Amino acid sequence: MSKLRCHISISLDGYVAGPNQSEENPLGEGGESLHDWVVPLAAFREAHGGEGGEANPSTSVFEEANANIGAAIMGRNMFGPIGGGAWDEQWKGWWGDEPPYHYPVFIVTHHPRESVQMKGGTTYHFVTDGIESALDQAKKAAGDKDVMLWGGGDIARQYLAAGLLDELELHVVPILLGGGSRLLDNTNVRLEQIRAVEAPGVAHLKYRIVP
Amino acid sequence: MSKLRCHISISLDGYVAGPNQSEENPLGEGGESLHDWVVPLAAFREAHGGEGGEANPSTSVFEEANANIGAAIMGRNMFGPIGGGAWDEQWKGWWGDEPPYHYPVFIVTHHPRESVQMKGGTTYHFVTDGIESALDQAKKAAGDKDVMLWGGGDIARQYLAAGLLDELELHVVPILLGGGSRLLDNTNVRLEQIRAVEAPGVAHLKYRIVP
Repeated sequence: MSKLRCHISISLDGYVAGPNQSEENPLGEGGESLHDWVVPLAAFREAHGGEGGEANPSTSVFEEANANIGAAIMGRNMFGPIGGGAWDEQWKGWWGDEPPYHYPVFIVTHHPRESVQMKGGTTYHFVTDGIESALDQAKKAAGDKDVMLWGGGDIARQYLAAGLLDELELHVVPILLGGGSRLLDNTNVRLEQIRAVEAPGVAHLKYRIVP
Repeated sequence: MSKLRCHISISLDGYVAGPNQSEENPLGEGGESLHDWVVPLAAFREAHGGEGGEANPSTSVFEEANANIGAAIMGRNMFGPIGGGAWDEQWKGWWGDEPPYHYPVFIVTHHPRESVQMKGGTTYHFVTDGIESALDQAKKAAGDKDVMLWGGGDIARQYLAAGLLDELELHVVPILLGGGSRLLDNTNVRLEQIRAVEAPGVAHLKYRIVP
């Protein structure tokens, strides 16, 4: 059965973004360091149309996390730095004309907007009737494959707290952000450890959410 | 050089004890589960004068964490459930006549008390002039060996925040406690990941504190 999976980088003190998030600083102060483990990977660069990079034990974690995905969900704040207002129809995400997704992406928002078709198989759909509806639509679109919950932290926390998430992989980065957006506050779910992987500058901890 | 090392069980949401700690419930509500990974180990049982138990990848982590220790530090609340008053001279810790330490243990407290010698090489010393003094005394007592910071969470946080800790190993347990004592709040240190070990029901994440 199709699963809802989330993998997200998190500081050792539990933040998925640092304090004082802003348009210039979408991951908050110090939050850029959360991605220091993934940016050097050849697998990451290739997925984003780049070249070069290295292979290390994070490579297979990264590849596995992104495999067998048929659709995705993301929060409005991850899609664009547009704040609370209506959509700027010119804004088509951070990822250029050919985004690295190649599947339908359902964006949870309060503001309706027509779907936007991009090159390479990515279509952005805007869902205004809540996280359960977004999940239903994404699962239908994914078919036999899984649905990726890309984040950010707020929407990941909502799906987790609602008991709708099936798998959570945390990329635990050895930094202390001291404030910001905490993923695991106010959630009450049962977890089962699937695995832990050591890699340079990060530990990958994967959990199943027990229904 | 002698190092100050701490290893401590922590929930995935960052708590080293659950909410509403009390004399009956020193690890707070749900906090007992933090030790589910260690209690079944034969190595743990043997260290505490018991028998039986199992071996798994946590065994070598447990043995290494407890090796090469010449003295230890603990907070008053870990030594006994005596609250804020003066010492009850009858109280000699939780660990019986022959505690599993076999080295000097320095207890940080506001209330003076004469040292107490136990069987098997453990002596309890009571330090009333602060965490730095306790560390100085413990390092002298440890000689070439390291000093173990046993906890609880409050004193571990104090040493960490003061930049006095050299190594921190977190036994990350897949539970969410939702409240209680958080180890990594209000600390601002630089960490370097030493290793991550997968074991049944726990992930062992070891860090060096960069001076």
